[in-house]
Amino acid sequence: MFPERFTTIRGLDPKDLCSLLLLTSRMKSHPERYSALLRGKTLLQFFVENSTRTRMSFEAATRKLGGSSIAFAASTSSFQKGETLVDTAKVIQQYGVDGMIVRHRSVGAPDLLADATGLPVINAGDGSHEHPTQALLDAFTLTEHWGLDSQDALGKAEFPFRGKRVMILGDLRHSRVARSNIHFLTALGAEVHLCGPTPLMIPDLSYFPAVHTHSFPDRGASGVISSMDAVMTLRIQVERQNQGNIPSLTEYREFWGLTRERATRLKPGAVVLHPGPVNRGVEIDAEVADSASSLILKQVENGVYARMAVLAKVFSKESAGVLS
Amino acid sequence: MFPERFTTIRGLDPKDLCSLLLLTSRMKSHPERYSALLRGKTLLQFFVENSTRTRMSFEAATRKLGGSSIAFAASTSSFQKGETLVDTAKVIQQYGVDGMIVRHRSVGAPDLLADATGLPVINAGDGSHEHPTQALLDAFTLTEHWGLDSQDALGKAEFPFRGKRVMILGDLRHSRVARSNIHFLTALGAEVHLCGPTPLMIPDLSYFPAVHTHSFPDRGASGVISSMDAVMTLRIQVERQNQGNIPSLTEYREFWGLTRERATRLKPGAVVLHPGPVNRGVEIDAEVADSASSLILKQVENGVYARMAVLAKVFSKESAGVLS
Amino acid sequence: MFPERFTTIRGLDPKDLCSLLLLTSRMKSHPERYSALLRGKTLLQFFVENSTRTRMSFEAATRKLGGSSIAFAASTSSFQKGETLVDTAKVIQQYGVDGMIVRHRSVGAPDLLADATGLPVINAGDGSHEHPTQALLDAFTLTEHWGLDSQDALGKAEFPFRGKRVMILGDLRHSRVARSNIHFLTALGAEVHLCGPTPLMIPDLSYFPAVHTHSFPDRGASGVISSMDAVMTLRIQVERQNQGNIPSLTEYREFWGLTRERATRLKPGAVVLHPGPVNRGVEIDAEVADSASSLILKQVENGVYARMAVLAKVFSKESAGVLS
Repeated sequence: MFPERFTTIRGLDPKDLCSLLLLTSRMKSHPERYSALLRGKTLLQFFVENSTRTRMSFEAATRKLGGSSIAFAASTSSFQKGETLVDTAKVIQQYGVDGMIVRHRSVGAPDLLADATGLPVINAGDGSHEHPTQALLDAFTLTEHWGLDSQDALGKAEFPFRGKRVMILGDLRHSRVARSNIHFLTALGAEVHLCGPTPLMIPDLSYFPAVHTHSFPDRGASGVISSMDAVMTLRIQVERQNQGNIPSLTEYREFWGLTRERATRLKPGAVVLHPGPVNRGVEIDAEVADSASSLILKQVENGVYARMAVLAKVFSKESAGVLS
Repeated sequence: MFPERFTTIRGLDPKDLCSLLLLTSRMKSHPERYSALLRGKTLLQFFVENSTRTRMSFEAATRKLGGSSIAFAASTSSFQKGETLVDTAKVIQQYGVDGMIVRHRSVGAPDLLADATGLPVINAGDGSHEHPTQALLDAFTLTEHWGLDSQDALGKAEFPFRGKRVMILGDLRHSRVARSNIHFLTALGAEVHLCGPTPLMIPDLSYFPAVHTHSFPDRGASGVISSMDAVMTLRIQVERQNQGNIPSLTEYREFWGLTRERATRLKPGAVVLHPGPVNRGVEIDAEVADSASSLILKQVENGVYARMAVLAKVFSKESAGVLS
Repeated sequence: MFPERFTTIRGLDPKDLCSLLLLTSRMKSHPERYSALLRGKTLLQFFVENSTRTRMSFEAATRKLGGSSIAFAASTSSFQKGETLVDTAKVIQQYGVDGMIVRHRSVGAPDLLADATGLPVINAGDGSHEHPTQALLDAFTLTEHWGLDSQDALGKAEFPFRGKRVMILGDLRHSRVARSNIHFLTALGAEVHLCGPTPLMIPDLSYFPAVHTHSFPDRGASGVISSMDAVMTLRIQVERQNQGNIPSLTEYREFWGLTRERATRLKPGAVVLHPGPVNRGVEIDAEVADSASSLILKQVENGVYARMAVLAKVFSKESAGVLS
């Protein structure tokens, strides 16, 4: 599978993804069984882009598996002195860490670092490319909600999400979360619908599996949002609103926001997700984010277990016995 | 008492405060007895305002009790992305920490976070409201100096500080340290005198217990400083001097600074405190800060034990047996 | 030797330096033997100047000896509030750390802190004064390359580097690495050659042991670089190029850079070092930095062992039995 790195969802086959979902489920049911899996191991958190949420989630996952984390603080680093990324990585490798969790603004940086160092690497978000652990936690949260988190549902069905419709709504163009989710959800058989302002659509969809695209969630004849089983709203980078891609935050909310009013048109049982941090009143209304159909806090909680599963798989050589 | 949060001194009764002073004393005499009290517990240091001193003091206290700390770095966090405080807290709660130590510029933030998360919370300073562990360490430092740190003195006397006069001198208006100390010292029977420039006096004293106020420490007929048993000098925020509250740092020192000359007018045995960091030559002269009557370094040392006591009390459900 | 501080190479005698080299060698061969040397000890990383490499190297070394590190983050500290360095240090001392690793922009800060606190202190770089652990790791890397890392070579010969010629090339004036290396290399008998633009030469060489100086590495009759056994290139602070000391980066490279072309003139077996971070294409070409004669990554690796040796020596009171 991916013995030594976890940098993309693209290219993984459905069986591997189901096996990760199952392992996430087992981490959640019996975390204590895995509490010594990373004993004695030190993982470098190589976060060159700001992040508190993902970093803390990985730190909690590492701790729950018995390992320890050290942080690489980019803002005080040699990066500011002009050193190349590969040089920095080779230097870090000499300090005796057992693996790296990498977030970087450049597409491909995690693979570059894995190649350069030979260390196990997990991608915690690279540019607008992929954020694979987020896709795993999102898929697991849906799996759990749909009652599919069992050996039966995941181990036997070829496409456990078949028949489910998921909309990803918002700034798709800049979103690595969207890209990883497209790969994950379609691989398991879901019907994926992308919806957002035209300038924020993914430019070249031919690289991706077949999806449906929509300019608006509920206008015209389509009114597509009302047929969805799940809607993943994406964060609007407020700092990007002056780049001409969206008219204004108020108008964004009016046309694409998951407002209280718009949420009433969801079908019964449909659920709402958001990778966070949430701009309440922009891409999603506070009432919707806090409603019973919102899985947002579940996502955060499951993030720790999803990352435990990925850590376990990446270090699976040593832990093969425990995991099977 | 306060089973799950420690956010204000106001409202605690004298017996509880004495019990905390006693516990601080026991932490100082026999720290090794408590070295497993927080074993397996992870405390989040949620410091949204800059701080090294208080943060390191809590970290040392946590470590001495066998627990571990993780830091939330506000400057790299979702705060900069517009997430609400409560959303951030709920997210953090999912990471499986056992409690939070909170510093925040907003009054009431620690209680808000305790309400939102249900986690044990210790206030490490909120706006100009309270800094309760500082008041505990200050009161303990005086207790120790006055020879009152015994079961007899603290367990039996109703008001162990009766007959003692303490002046708090400086920028009272912006000081959470002053406010927590007013509550603590008056509750134990001390006579509290506030002294500082009129624009820096606490605006509405009716909220507080009865105190004496003075515009100058030693001018006119009063010359009140010479009758004090202790003088707590407060830090002048140098960066605030252009807001029109004080004429200049030189004049501040002349009228309100605890200069070498002014210190000679203290009565024999009177002691000097400062919460730090000290602006030498502004609110206190270097010679006074380093003199035999200065308890400033004692305060820092005792801060670790005071915080150990508070941590022990906040987690007292599990530690009841050890503490009684 | 230096029971409680390690702040300069200057003044240490050759026997002590050889003993440190030997200990470094033993740390590298059998790190597991020393894995409990600092058990229960907490070292403060007091880095007031930015650094990731040196900080992580010390952190790895501390961890490998069984100790733990806490970081002092200068950017969020009381320094910004005007506190003196000694006051900060005395405060930190109260938190119960067992020693300090200090990096500071001011010459002498580590000794000042050692004097003020009475704590064991290791200098991790002070202004343009010294960076003694870097000199140890550089010397050990050469020792190892030259096959001198044995009890015989280091324990018996008085000057094990006798007959070796080492050039230090670049911005000598601002380099604490150069200064520590001059002391270390000459003490062990090496012939040291300094080479760089005249405005970047060390201003007062009378303070140092006898060295040879050159304006250019390979011009005129001298062509001195071709007779060297090792060339240590120094980092050009790109941000200093506008201070009038070098004409331009392009011209710096042409006259003093260790270019691919210039490297062909090195004698067979000569090796190249660089303390990092490397400006590829300025002071050294990428091809040279990555060539077989480059010991740059070895330096980083050995840095961890050199720092383990220094930590062991500084805490040698308690560890005397294990080290002898």
